[in-house]
Amino acid sequence: MRSLEGLSINLATVRQQWNLGEAVKACARHGISAIDPWRDQVAAYGLANSAKVIKDHGMRVTGYCRGGMFPASDAAGRAAAIDDNKRAVDEAVALGASCVVLVVGGLPQYSRPGSAPTKDLAGAQEHVADSIAKLLEYSRAAHIPLAIEPLHPMYAADRACVNSMRHALDLCDRIDPARSGMLGIVVDLYHVWWDFELYRQIERCGRERLLAFHVCDWLVPTTDLLNDRGMMGDGVIDILRVRSAVEDLGYSGYVEVELFSDRWWARPMDEVLTTCIERIMTVV
Amino acid sequence: MRSLEGLSINLATVRQQWNLGEAVKACARHGISAIDPWRDQVAAYGLANSAKVIKDHGMRVTGYCRGGMFPASDAAGRAAAIDDNKRAVDEAVALGASCVVLVVGGLPQYSRPGSAPTKDLAGAQEHVADSIAKLLEYSRAAHIPLAIEPLHPMYAADRACVNSMRHALDLCDRIDPARSGMLGIVVDLYHVWWDFELYRQIERCGRERLLAFHVCDWLVPTTDLLNDRGMMGDGVIDILRVRSAVEDLGYSGYVEVELFSDRWWARPMDEVLTTCIERIMTVV
Repeated sequence: MRSLEGLSINLATVRQQWNLGEAVKACARHGISAIDPWRDQVAAYGLANSAKVIKDHGMRVTGYCRGGMFPASDAAGRAAAIDDNKRAVDEAVALGASCVVLVVGGLPQYSRPGSAPTKDLAGAQEHVADSIAKLLEYSRAAHIPLAIEPLHPMYAADRACVNSMRHALDLCDRIDPARSGMLGIVVDLYHVWWDFELYRQIERCGRERLLAFHVCDWLVPTTDLLNDRGMMGDGVIDILRVRSAVEDLGYSGYVEVELFSDRWWARPMDEVLTTCIERIMTVV
Repeated sequence: MRSLEGLSINLATVRQQWNLGEAVKACARHGISAIDPWRDQVAAYGLANSAKVIKDHGMRVTGYCRGGMFPASDAAGRAAAIDDNKRAVDEAVALGASCVVLVVGGLPQYSRPGSAPTKDLAGAQEHVADSIAKLLEYSRAAHIPLAIEPLHPMYAADRACVNSMRHALDLCDRIDPARSGMLGIVVDLYHVWWDFELYRQIERCGRERLLAFHVCDWLVPTTDLLNDRGMMGDGVIDILRVRSAVEDLGYSGYVEVELFSDRWWARPMDEVLTTCIERIMTVV
């Protein structure tokens, strides 16, 4: 990218360094105009305070992380999950977020601790579909799009049992066949870069269903399943090619940097932001 | 499974404990009648010695691990890869193996060290398709089927850029549209269990293309991308359901246990084999 204008920082990227308010101020100081906060960060800083600091600094909110974690083994747990997701939608409204990101959850015992253990992944996937359909009635009324994020298959058991763009788009076709714009997906390169159908599914997705575009890199070797994501340019993902494919769709939204990395969390926040900016200008 | 008859031990499972000869003898002692050796194990024990100890103990050889690693950045490297795979086919003939397992390779710099670094995964995938087509001419004449093993997407960069049954079966359709029986796939639960299309693709595969069925388990948490596979029953994979789906196809071949696990490599070989047998009788 040739300018900073399209850059958004997912605040997980600097979550160990500072709170939401300081992160927003640091982004503003570096000329960054958009963020994507996490619910725990908003809860810690306070919803009203978060909305205020975001507004005061003229920040766009390119998503709200995260709704989801739907599977539960009993009716009470399932209802609690929907209620919790409705609150996430309400918070997204308060923050002026452009969508709620859904990490849909895996097997019930991991999505909703206390649930009875099961190996029925297909059952969890069915339950996810039903839950998104239910939540969509609520989010549609609140004018907040839901963005299903297919997660890397290594998270299928404990984080998300939707693990490919094909699956996520099948869900969109089923739940929102009219392509209302209120249900779509997040394309996060870390999760989908390996897919032999990547470009075909981006094309299938279409502009109206591409609600967010997240970047980081895949390191070889990757030494931790969770917190060893790479800074753009340090790994093997052909980021430029995918961004070009996404732009060919007509996507002109933000490119959001989301890194979970023990290595980058250990560095000063200003250094992380400076590096994100430099890499966005050169390798994204 | 109710008996030991269908059990095969992939010798990677005990590769740290003993050499090929001792492993074969231990399997025989435990009433196990089939194995799948790795090329480095055969090389270390000697091809003729390996063939002899296998024959002397009446062992079936349910596969030969492994061919593949095709991508290279130049013509010489690509030719070397094909030659190396032809030797694997020759060795499989000498051992009486039922197929050569193909771990196809990822980006050239990892498949064939010394290759120029690239991020062109689609290019590697194309090269893999061409290479399998070339190798098939040779293996067909040797009457050794080639079994493409889709690997978990977390190995896309460095081990195999074929990461789903859909991709592997697309390759079979393209390279062997006549379904000659000489090209098929390995279904290894560790690699494909997460796929929302798993049962659909097993059905699509059909009996004649299902050349091997490997089992182990996915642990939560998984602490290492390579060597933290679980013993059957210790993880979240619904092994019984998949085995049933595979049998519904008419598959009556071996169920092969393949574990890469620092934990199990640290235990005595007899304990590992006893545990495999117990789990095969109860949870597979």
